[in-house]
Amino acid sequence: MLKVAILGAGRIAQIHSKSAFLNSQCELKLIADPWKEGVDKLANELHCEACYDYYEAIDRDDVDAIVIATATDLHIDLMLHAVKRKKPVLCEKPIDLDFQRSITAVKEIQSHDGKVMLAFNRRFDEDTIAIKEAILNNEIGEIRQVIITSRDPGMQPVEYLKTSGGIFKDMTIHDFDTARYILGEEPIEIFATASRLVDEELASINDYDTCSITLKTQSGKQCIINNCREAVYGYDQRIEVLGSQGLLKTQNHRPTTLKKYTLDFTGAQKPLLNFFLQRYISSYRKEFDVFVSCLVEGNEFPTNLFDGLQALYLAVCAIASTESNKAIAVNPEGPKESLTDDIGLFLL
Amino acid sequence: MLKVAILGAGRIAQIHSKSAFLNSQCELKLIADPWKEGVDKLANELHCEACYDYYEAIDRDDVDAIVIATATDLHIDLMLHAVKRKKPVLCEKPIDLDFQRSITAVKEIQSHDGKVMLAFNRRFDEDTIAIKEAILNNEIGEIRQVIITSRDPGMQPVEYLKTSGGIFKDMTIHDFDTARYILGEEPIEIFATASRLVDEELASINDYDTCSITLKTQSGKQCIINNCREAVYGYDQRIEVLGSQGLLKTQNHRPTTLKKYTLDFTGAQKPLLNFFLQRYISSYRKEFDVFVSCLVEGNEFPTNLFDGLQALYLAVCAIASTESNKAIAVNPEGPKESLTDDIGLFLL
Amino acid sequence: MLKVAILGAGRIAQIHSKSAFLNSQCELKLIADPWKEGVDKLANELHCEACYDYYEAIDRDDVDAIVIATATDLHIDLMLHAVKRKKPVLCEKPIDLDFQRSITAVKEIQSHDGKVMLAFNRRFDEDTIAIKEAILNNEIGEIRQVIITSRDPGMQPVEYLKTSGGIFKDMTIHDFDTARYILGEEPIEIFATASRLVDEELASINDYDTCSITLKTQSGKQCIINNCREAVYGYDQRIEVLGSQGLLKTQNHRPTTLKKYTLDFTGAQKPLLNFFLQRYISSYRKEFDVFVSCLVEGNEFPTNLFDGLQALYLAVCAIASTESNKAIAVNPEGPKESLTDDIGLFLL
Amino acid sequence: MLKVAILGAGRIAQIHSKSAFLNSQCELKLIADPWKEGVDKLANELHCEACYDYYEAIDRDDVDAIVIATATDLHIDLMLHAVKRKKPVLCEKPIDLDFQRSITAVKEIQSHDGKVMLAFNRRFDEDTIAIKEAILNNEIGEIRQVIITSRDPGMQPVEYLKTSGGIFKDMTIHDFDTARYILGEEPIEIFATASRLVDEELASINDYDTCSITLKTQSGKQCIINNCREAVYGYDQRIEVLGSQGLLKTQNHRPTTLKKYTLDFTGAQKPLLNFFLQRYISSYRKEFDVFVSCLVEGNEFPTNLFDGLQALYLAVCAIASTESNKAIAVNPEGPKESLTDDIGLFLL
Repeated sequence: MLKVAILGAGRIAQIHSKSAFLNSQCELKLIADPWKEGVDKLANELHCEACYDYYEAIDRDDVDAIVIATATDLHIDLMLHAVKRKKPVLCEKPIDLDFQRSITAVKEIQSHDGKVMLAFNRRFDEDTIAIKEAILNNEIGEIRQVIITSRDPGMQPVEYLKTSGGIFKDMTIHDFDTARYILGEEPIEIFATASRLVDEELASINDYDTCSITLKTQSGKQCIINNCREAVYGYDQRIEVLGSQGLLKTQNHRPTTLKKYTLDFTGAQKPLLNFFLQRYISSYRKEFDVFVSCLVEGNEFPTNLFDGLQALYLAVCAIASTESNKAIAVNPEGPKESLTDDIGLFLL
Repeated sequence: MLKVAILGAGRIAQIHSKSAFLNSQCELKLIADPWKEGVDKLANELHCEACYDYYEAIDRDDVDAIVIATATDLHIDLMLHAVKRKKPVLCEKPIDLDFQRSITAVKEIQSHDGKVMLAFNRRFDEDTIAIKEAILNNEIGEIRQVIITSRDPGMQPVEYLKTSGGIFKDMTIHDFDTARYILGEEPIEIFATASRLVDEELASINDYDTCSITLKTQSGKQCIINNCREAVYGYDQRIEVLGSQGLLKTQNHRPTTLKKYTLDFTGAQKPLLNFFLQRYISSYRKEFDVFVSCLVEGNEFPTNLFDGLQALYLAVCAIASTESNKAIAVNPEGPKESLTDDIGLFLL
Repeated sequence: MLKVAILGAGRIAQIHSKSAFLNSQCELKLIADPWKEGVDKLANELHCEACYDYYEAIDRDDVDAIVIATATDLHIDLMLHAVKRKKPVLCEKPIDLDFQRSITAVKEIQSHDGKVMLAFNRRFDEDTIAIKEAILNNEIGEIRQVIITSRDPGMQPVEYLKTSGGIFKDMTIHDFDTARYILGEEPIEIFATASRLVDEELASINDYDTCSITLKTQSGKQCIINNCREAVYGYDQRIEVLGSQGLLKTQNHRPTTLKKYTLDFTGAQKPLLNFFLQRYISSYRKEFDVFVSCLVEGNEFPTNLFDGLQALYLAVCAIASTESNKAIAVNPEGPKESLTDDIGLFLL
Repeated sequence: MLKVAILGAGRIAQIHSKSAFLNSQCELKLIADPWKEGVDKLANELHCEACYDYYEAIDRDDVDAIVIATATDLHIDLMLHAVKRKKPVLCEKPIDLDFQRSITAVKEIQSHDGKVMLAFNRRFDEDTIAIKEAILNNEIGEIRQVIITSRDPGMQPVEYLKTSGGIFKDMTIHDFDTARYILGEEPIEIFATASRLVDEELASINDYDTCSITLKTQSGKQCIINNCREAVYGYDQRIEVLGSQGLLKTQNHRPTTLKKYTLDFTGAQKPLLNFFLQRYISSYRKEFDVFVSCLVEGNEFPTNLFDGLQALYLAVCAIASTESNKAIAVNPEGPKESLTDDIGLFLL
């Protein structure tokens, strides 16, 4: 049976560990983290070994597959280490916050024929899957416009966001991947505009809290993404797809279906699911299960390093568009090696 | 052109008068009411004559059709007067609050070959029509269960209800007609239970404010009606029909489609349309237009005196069921002439 | 740690076994069933012992609590066996299909001070909980009318239903418990009417497929239950509560939130969750967890033998009402010992 | 009483004529159109005079106010004629398809102190009004993002669209006005992208069928407009407003509230209202009534020539943005006199 090591003991690592524990095609061998207290508690709960060194965990002979759910700046190093030992990896997004480093790393991983699945969990959400299936079944004909609404329930402190990479790399990056997935065609043009409407303090770290992005593909399909760091009514995650034969819409998720009708309000419901851990918990589960079943059954991973790179690339272009007030051309085959040229070349 | 006289100058009469004014197949000739001030104002607004005597209005040679929207206790007399003068009538429901008088009157009107359309306006509501059409188009197969929810936004004072005839004759009577219309088959059994949950004072007039009624037809189709004199969230009017191939549901109407999502409530809407004049205004309009077009084109009226009698009959049986705690058998061919026997016979 | 034995290896037993496996307050000690193949497979998957004898499993010293998920006709024997050994029980509903046997058994279990939680899983459904909480928080004032719609997606063959106890004891019994739970007050009167609209063959076993039931409490609160063995659009489970200050409504559950808008239909969604195992899986989980936490923390069980008896009592009265076409009085303190007298006494 | 002349006898003119007929504060004096057959029929139906010359109609002494619902290229001439005779005007949008001519005309009309209300009927839609009221009541705090979805049910032939002025001036212009109205602040930046996804033939007239537009105001509020000339599921008209304290959403309108649940689809509704005459009929009525009441009560018009100019200005900027792939700066005080400079100046 496939033996899995989870690197990390934080929130996402806990989800993956529980998935591994419940998945009948694999065995949760160990959880690794230098944070002894956290890893001990988690390993104890899930009846597996604790390990205090990421690299040691990767090296162990009784570990077949690696899940990287550590801090972002370790992703590349740990992926490379695993790949060199021929161990397949499920790595949390993003590859790295630095675009140039990411390009270089992907090249190196590819030179080792590394098997890496990138953890874009939203692709495994039942609603996103249902949309994709309806499109593939030709239920709405050719896609014309996609609208992705993605808003966080509340904003973290500016201090915390300082290391996030900015709204485009931290938040919109999920929507860039969803856009590529649903469009089924690479964007070749991007325009972004951003504001500070939640907290003016974001100016101090050159970041934004509210943005609107327009993508266009070669064939003219359009995608509009709108993000806000704060939506007081809860975690707002909706997708609309206009096709030549119809429209698809997903709705927000709620903890119950109860509706209340009173003198003042009719049809009021309780607040939405609070945040991504509640809203997307089943997609995290399914993502892990797909990772394991791909390995066990020898299938291709549904998300790979190119997906990781392309989403980051779109984020970098969005930043350039915001700064220049111009649409940016995007190379559908992915970024060139040298970043500066790339962006330079592609300003329309 | 068909010349119409409206008898009455109250709320319903005002609606019919405006319908007549706008209908291009007829001419609003006059509005009649002994209440001078009211009828003068209304006639002036709608550029027609005012008349202060109902019988005189019916008698006039330049009046072809009569709309009776007066107090209920005048319905029978005015209908008979019109029918004897061979003038077709659109009469507001009910025929009369007294069941025995109603039976006798219907017999007499029929002996004069009277043309009377009874004003069950809800049959002309766009939602009810859409339900009936879907059933007739066999979109849900054979009917199994019908659920009619019908609740008033607020209760009139007990003083006012004293002359209403009680909840079954005053309120449920509409739902009895809707039930017959949707079922497409006469009920042969009725059970009713009633409570005083809004105002205990109703005991003083032997009336109720909350009731549940079960009807069954010969073929076993069931219909559940639930009424309450007070629903603080507004005028609640919904119909559900379970068929062998599907379910049909109508929803309440609202003044706008706006939904609001805030910290406390998500999806809250403004209150429902306040009451029947708002909710059913278009059905009143359509009802009048159907009356006129039936006359102009020589078609049968869609609602007639039998419908009026049958709804009243069900109300009388509901009262008997409430009092006896037993299901009451209903004669699908309508009440026999003598009331006492009738009910006596039909207790199951 | 609380050591749990699951009796049974069928569908419901599998759910309880998995709940026990995942519950961190208890240990899944063993699963017992004479059906070797089934129990071996299940026990193997969940890393616990298999046992081939129910009574042996109850007797084992290393078993602290018993879950009875066997065939219905063993419920009473196994409960009594466990209770005599002072072991607490979570027992699937119903107590027994025979009302008189149930009354006698409950008396005997009570004489042993037996701790039994009866598995009315729907009380642990998130929507039902949300309704109950809103009522307890006085969000809609005093209850006036409750409407419970409960329809199966499809009907089992008549052959299978022969041993079900009939629609009232097999299907409506869940709704009787829900009604009592939501009303917060015992019914004192019941009227039921039933038809065969799905399959006439049910006449051969004196059963029905479609029924409507009206309950009334001492204070006049009304509850309408409507059941049908077949709803082609899926498992229809909805509750409405009208209160003096507002209305509560729950809606059906769906596998995704996707809506599709095309030329012919707008807003169409995929079919509902198929049946009770899909719709109520989380309530089964929660039910088990509540059972364990009550034992660990020393709390009263939220559902007990009286609940089981009262739901069965209402089913028996519903049958009597259907047969007599009369409302049946229900003793709010539960059935008397002798059934015949009971029903005889209570015909209104 | 205010005497009104309607110029035009086409679809919109018919609506305004009927509004004038029903409005009790004004008298429908005449309808004017050189198209004898059309104007005779309409005037006959509404009991008013027919006139075959627009200018003669304006000049008549017994006409107090003018409604211009003629072909677009006559708007400016007729407005100027009326304004010179000191007669107030309700003029259909747009002022003119030629931006430079519009600027010049507005200046001239202003020099005559002309009283002109521009017919942006959607501002009088009950849903738009409800959104605006909720914003003004501070129900969702400060506006952050507005999303306007506006799609036609089907596309006219390219031949017809040749004279339409293009998608931005013909279709988006309504949404530009709605955006300005809801934002309550002028846009200072616009980016537009457009495709031909419905009909490639549009390339022959340099027009598009699908477009996405991003607007930003001085304070950073964002507005996204998405248009498509074809939505097979019907006329799609929705608005969303994200504010600091909540979200507002309007929904599409339907002819009935009926929902159907079958084996394949659940919750399917009939198609949306077909097109703008069905969807916005009540807003046309209300618009006219507001025009009359402003005149009778001496209030300012809610929409004026500046609104007409600004919407056209945004359309011109959208065209420039589409062609240049750059965001265009918009002067919040309106276009400068010379168009070329204007656009030249404002490219960001």
